[in-house]
Amino acid sequence: MAWRHGFQGVGVASDDSDLLEVTALQHQLRQFADVRDWEQFHSPKNLAMALAGEAGELLEIFQWLSETESRELTDDDRARVAEEIADLQIYLLRLADVLRVSLQAAVADKMDQNERKYPVGESKGNATKYSRRGR
Amino acid sequence: MAWRHGFQGVGVASDDSDLLEVTALQHQLRQFADVRDWEQFHSPKNLAMALAGEAGELLEIFQWLSETESRELTDDDRARVAEEIADLQIYLLRLADVLRVSLQAAVADKMDQNERKYPVGESKGNATKYSRRGR
Amino acid sequence: MAWRHGFQGVGVASDDSDLLEVTALQHQLRQFADVRDWEQFHSPKNLAMALAGEAGELLEIFQWLSETESRELTDDDRARVAEEIADLQIYLLRLADVLRVSLQAAVADKMDQNERKYPVGESKGNATKYSRRGR
Amino acid sequence: MAWRHGFQGVGVASDDSDLLEVTALQHQLRQFADVRDWEQFHSPKNLAMALAGEAGELLEIFQWLSETESRELTDDDRARVAEEIADLQIYLLRLADVLRVSLQAAVADKMDQNERKYPVGESKGNATKYSRRGR
Repeated sequence: MAWRHGFQGVGVASDDSDLLEVTALQHQLRQFADVRDWEQFHSPKNLAMALAGEAGELLEIFQWLSETESRELTDDDRARVAEEIADLQIYLLRLADVLRVSLQAAVADKMDQNERKYPVGESKGNATKYSRRGR
Repeated sequence: MAWRHGFQGVGVASDDSDLLEVTALQHQLRQFADVRDWEQFHSPKNLAMALAGEAGELLEIFQWLSETESRELTDDDRARVAEEIADLQIYLLRLADVLRVSLQAAVADKMDQNERKYPVGESKGNATKYSRRGR
Repeated sequence: MAWRHGFQGVGVASDDSDLLEVTALQHQLRQFADVRDWEQFHSPKNLAMALAGEAGELLEIFQWLSETESRELTDDDRARVAEEIADLQIYLLRLADVLRVSLQAAVADKMDQNERKYPVGESKGNATKYSRRGR
Repeated sequence: MAWRHGFQGVGVASDDSDLLEVTALQHQLRQFADVRDWEQFHSPKNLAMALAGEAGELLEIFQWLSETESRELTDDDRARVAEEIADLQIYLLRLADVLRVSLQAAVADKMDQNERKYPVGESKGNATKYSRRGR
């Protein structure tokens, strides 16, 4: 699995850490689409639909489970969720690539925003406010 | 923006590359939830819903645009899309964290699977087959 | 509100019953789009996206509520849910119209199918089987 | 198919019209769930998830099709769409039932609102405004 190691020779920092080599993965995914002539289908509009479709599949795994059950998934369900997570991540990488959005910068900006938007004191344990403001 | 640089001193390799320090970001997001007593709301079931809700917001940006327009977004729309991408990435990081799924390994496995599932010869430019099999 | 009464003079049968005059509503919605030159945007593809976007808004109301809370909504949340239900119903009417699908016949066929697919004996109280087969 | 005719003896008005006997269908769906002990799973939260999951399946049919192709579906795809439309309608009926929301009244109110919100003059052929305001 070349993409684990391939990015400028920099691999995973340690066994305990998880790292996503966004640029390298996007390069691979672009080539994957390119050799199949699938770039034509990968408009941002279509990728957004595909991503939302995968989010729907994720919902279907959880829809009849209680919250408690969702925290204690069977191995089988956990494997299915991992696959949906991968599909979502792949479409997210692809969408960011075709629109030239930096995942890293977008996430950093949003985390900054969220820090300002939800001050610890006001937000603490407040489900209602979270629900109201968390959108 | 500490998370760009903070993980074991390893920062972004270069200006041209994009990299997600998954473990470090997940640690930050866990703390963000923890100090607000929001861990209680972050069951996998609820996070899946929140993620799908963000996917819905992404759709709303693209729903009346043509595919061509979606490839040539205004700066304004591009900024809105970047925010939704960030929200999606954040919930994906959080979901993978609470379920202890490695994003990197899940993506690598799925990319392997996709290589086997869609051989180049059969898949080339075949929208119908893609549509049928791409789910 | 003419559409409550207007279809061939047939109104609501009684205060206790709920009835959707599908054809009459579709006619109104088609005219609504037509006078605004919006028919051009209402391709099945786009309507499917709009519908899924509304489903996302519905999720956002429920995402941080427990199941119990979702059964005992505040008046405020109940009103918001009613609006999303209306949006979903409107896009569903519109989609069925542009594709010339009979809502009534489609629902009847599906209910028949479900009767055969989930025999009472096998399905009784079986969440797991429901979850597995309910898709 | 009793539900086409069963509601207080009132059947379909004519072959050309489509009518949804909401109350009668909801009664049937409630019984369907009841005899299987599935009422316990049908919290509004879970039904919202199920509905959004079906919306995701609808997206998957259209995601790689052009808008033009989506207007000229194959018989096969049209049948698949009809099934998803039915699933969506069924969950919408069920959700309205458990929350005691009148589908008819909710749709009528929303159509009134939309008339006021999008005046014909301002809205005509204006995709951008539609996109901006249509949410």
